[in-house]
Amino acid sequence: MVLLLSAVSLLSALHLGYLTRQVGKSRSIHGITPPAVNGAPEFERTFRAHQNCVEFYPIFLVVFWTAGLHTSEVLAAVLGLFYIYAQHCFFFGYQASSKGRLSGFYASLVIIITLANLATVGIFSGILDEYFDIDLKKKILK
Amino acid sequence: MVLLLSAVSLLSALHLGYLTRQVGKSRSIHGITPPAVNGAPEFERTFRAHQNCVEFYPIFLVVFWTAGLHTSEVLAAVLGLFYIYAQHCFFFGYQASSKGRLSGFYASLVIIITLANLATVGIFSGILDEYFDIDLKKKILK
Amino acid sequence: MVLLLSAVSLLSALHLGYLTRQVGKSRSIHGITPPAVNGAPEFERTFRAHQNCVEFYPIFLVVFWTAGLHTSEVLAAVLGLFYIYAQHCFFFGYQASSKGRLSGFYASLVIIITLANLATVGIFSGILDEYFDIDLKKKILK
Repeated sequence: MVLLLSAVSLLSALHLGYLTRQVGKSRSIHGITPPAVNGAPEFERTFRAHQNCVEFYPIFLVVFWTAGLHTSEVLAAVLGLFYIYAQHCFFFGYQASSKGRLSGFYASLVIIITLANLATVGIFSGILDEYFDIDLKKKILK
Repeated sequence: MVLLLSAVSLLSALHLGYLTRQVGKSRSIHGITPPAVNGAPEFERTFRAHQNCVEFYPIFLVVFWTAGLHTSEVLAAVLGLFYIYAQHCFFFGYQASSKGRLSGFYASLVIIITLANLATVGIFSGILDEYFDIDLKKKILK
Repeated sequence: MVLLLSAVSLLSALHLGYLTRQVGKSRSIHGITPPAVNGAPEFERTFRAHQNCVEFYPIFLVVFWTAGLHTSEVLAAVLGLFYIYAQHCFFFGYQASSKGRLSGFYASLVIIITLANLATVGIFSGILDEYFDIDLKKKILK
């Protein structure tokens, strides 16, 4: 009962919380008190890196859950773990330098696109089955 | 099994990804490299338009799913499609001019309020039924 | 059928919408028209307070739903109500002064950590039961 999807979602939420904490740490290091969001270039990169992770998070959750619910929970869970790792690389790469964000960014994108494709296939064949009584799996196996 | 809610959620997530890409494109056009978020007025409007879409997205997802789960999945799905279109108009309207955001903004708001009302009715009658054994539908039909 | 989780989620989404509206109000009061996000210190604090609420919201939703699905729906719902109140205090505290955000912030954090712990226990014992056929509850009661 969505145990693996829940487990990876929980892990991803805690990881995002951990990244949020890095922004606070970067504030302390560079002496930038809220609500200011400008100052040392390293802080500004850390701040933007976090913002980008936040922006991508709901998109990830949607493709992750729709893929997991309508195709394979195990496959979605594994891709979800890779996504957390890719976001980790993106964040700390971006913190180090503006170009350092790219590999983690592209990896995240590839995983999101893969999950979105899985979800599309699963939902499409589900709708065919449910609303048009067409069993795609059987048709392909024939 | 939540196929229509999943389909519209997936579409909305991909649409938000598409809007995110527009910010990147606007960066290229106006030569603004990350982590900078200031510069040409058109870029700043594009950036803010995207931020607003991101801010509204979790609110939309919650009212959309609670409405769909507790009232009519088909009705919620149709409203969800209108929401994606309204956000589309909001984004490109805002990119064109600050006033251009208004019609799409109000349309989005109306859809969110409608979904929230649907969800409230569905959850309220569900709680009455489940916890107080009061069947609202029957009472009204009598 | 997740009625309480839906009810509290809906309430939290409407509350976040209400906070979003406060940013608009603060824009009017201080005469700051979109897309500008700088100006009067009070507006900047209001703007940042809202941003922080938006950043925390998906994290809250994930720990809230995973806790509610895999442990106790009632307990999660009560903690969710406290979270909304804590965010309320955080927002208006931050709007008043930069230090005013702290008590609401720490309260929110404690609730998120509690929900995350509940979810971890629930998912962990669920996975042991489902995939390893180990019933943790029985073992502890023995």
